[in-house]
Amino acid sequence: MNLVLLEPDELQADGTAILTGRRARHVREVLQTNPGNEIRMGVVDGPLGTATVVAAGQELHLRCALSNVVPPIPRVDVLLALPRPKTMNRLWPVLASLGVGRILVSNAWKTERCYFDTHVLAPAHVRAALLVGLEQARDTRLPRVSVHRRFRKLIEDELAEAGPYALRLVAHPGEKTLPFERLAALPRASRVLLAVGPEGGWIPSEMELLAKHGFDAVSWGPRPLRTDTACVALLGAIGAALNA
Amino acid sequence: MNLVLLEPDELQADGTAILTGRRARHVREVLQTNPGNEIRMGVVDGPLGTATVVAAGQELHLRCALSNVVPPIPRVDVLLALPRPKTMNRLWPVLASLGVGRILVSNAWKTERCYFDTHVLAPAHVRAALLVGLEQARDTRLPRVSVHRRFRKLIEDELAEAGPYALRLVAHPGEKTLPFERLAALPRASRVLLAVGPEGGWIPSEMELLAKHGFDAVSWGPRPLRTDTACVALLGAIGAALNA
Repeated sequence: MNLVLLEPDELQADGTAILTGRRARHVREVLQTNPGNEIRMGVVDGPLGTATVVAAGQELHLRCALSNVVPPIPRVDVLLALPRPKTMNRLWPVLASLGVGRILVSNAWKTERCYFDTHVLAPAHVRAALLVGLEQARDTRLPRVSVHRRFRKLIEDELAEAGPYALRLVAHPGEKTLPFERLAALPRASRVLLAVGPEGGWIPSEMELLAKHGFDAVSWGPRPLRTDTACVALLGAIGAALNA
Repeated sequence: MNLVLLEPDELQADGTAILTGRRARHVREVLQTNPGNEIRMGVVDGPLGTATVVAAGQELHLRCALSNVVPPIPRVDVLLALPRPKTMNRLWPVLASLGVGRILVSNAWKTERCYFDTHVLAPAHVRAALLVGLEQARDTRLPRVSVHRRFRKLIEDELAEAGPYALRLVAHPGEKTLPFERLAALPRASRVLLAVGPEGGWIPSEMELLAKHGFDAVSWGPRPLRTDTACVALLGAIGAALNA
């Protein structure tokens, strides 16, 4: 935890906050702070800042000093064919730590329908897992998560609401590698969407629909990777190019 | 499993092989092959090829047809400060699937000494975990793993044996981003070494020693990432640049 994140309603009007549970325990036992010490804090979808520890017992009393600046929304969104629950669970904090604006969880031909009925998509569960990633990455911008059970409807209709995107990429085995120069040359305000398919990949009709809606197929290389590895490796490459 | 990997001594002189256990079960139950079907196979550190299923009972009988070409050794090596065992365990197959020539597991100031005494470094365990990654990525080149309990000795003496490297990079928070153009312009035969530190990072004296031995500090971006995420994100970016 590189940052203690407060929910907006935990911050009192006078700039103080009282925490209990996991976060209080972390500050007390891992950071081993004493009254008077400063810690990094932030407000979910709000500014970063510092907090002075006023009391560090069972209840953690903080006096917060917030910056005026709210971190920008990350420039990359992910469209992810829902992987198996164990993988999805592991990906939530990882995606939040890498920084994504939106996570569009999608159906795909090779996605098991029953995955959609598991607890990994329960909003409270997702939110808690994403917060862990933000605490790691010192960010306050909670990725917006939406679940789309109809792939065609997502691509044809619902995606318009999420964009606009300067670049739509779909991970797919092939010759075309990541367009580094195009990524590095994008204006600072422009956004990128990366679509990552299920284990076994997108089927031809899905690739056709994606191509028709402006997605360029890109491949990390000739090695077939697991969904979660492909996701992090490609977000790693895209992020590095955008930061370059 | 995108590839059934044989140990060299499992391949008989007449090109046949008999498998049992995990691999036989996978071919029987997941691939659902019948006699006469072809599957992708390879020999550890040897060529790729195909195998015709001769019998698919408890024992899987294969007739193998190997290519003359052995896949090249991946161009990237990783020097990794040993993370906590759970993380290291998860990383073995991921690193093998991304493709690394060597994994140099190192001590560092912020690495817990007791991690070195756990089963995650036991050679048989490591080998089995790496093979899972190769089966995923359709590669036969088993990463060579070495364990270095003395960081200074590794950097000053032992690293010379592992190289030579056209580029030595160390992941470290800061302004310098990945040198994409340099990576993309490297000659095809040249190799790259990426050093990834422990949770909490390298300490200044470690960074000085690394700098003295030709390591350039590079950062994925301003977000602090977990070791395993940083590893995959940076290998993703480096691999994509080398493949570009």
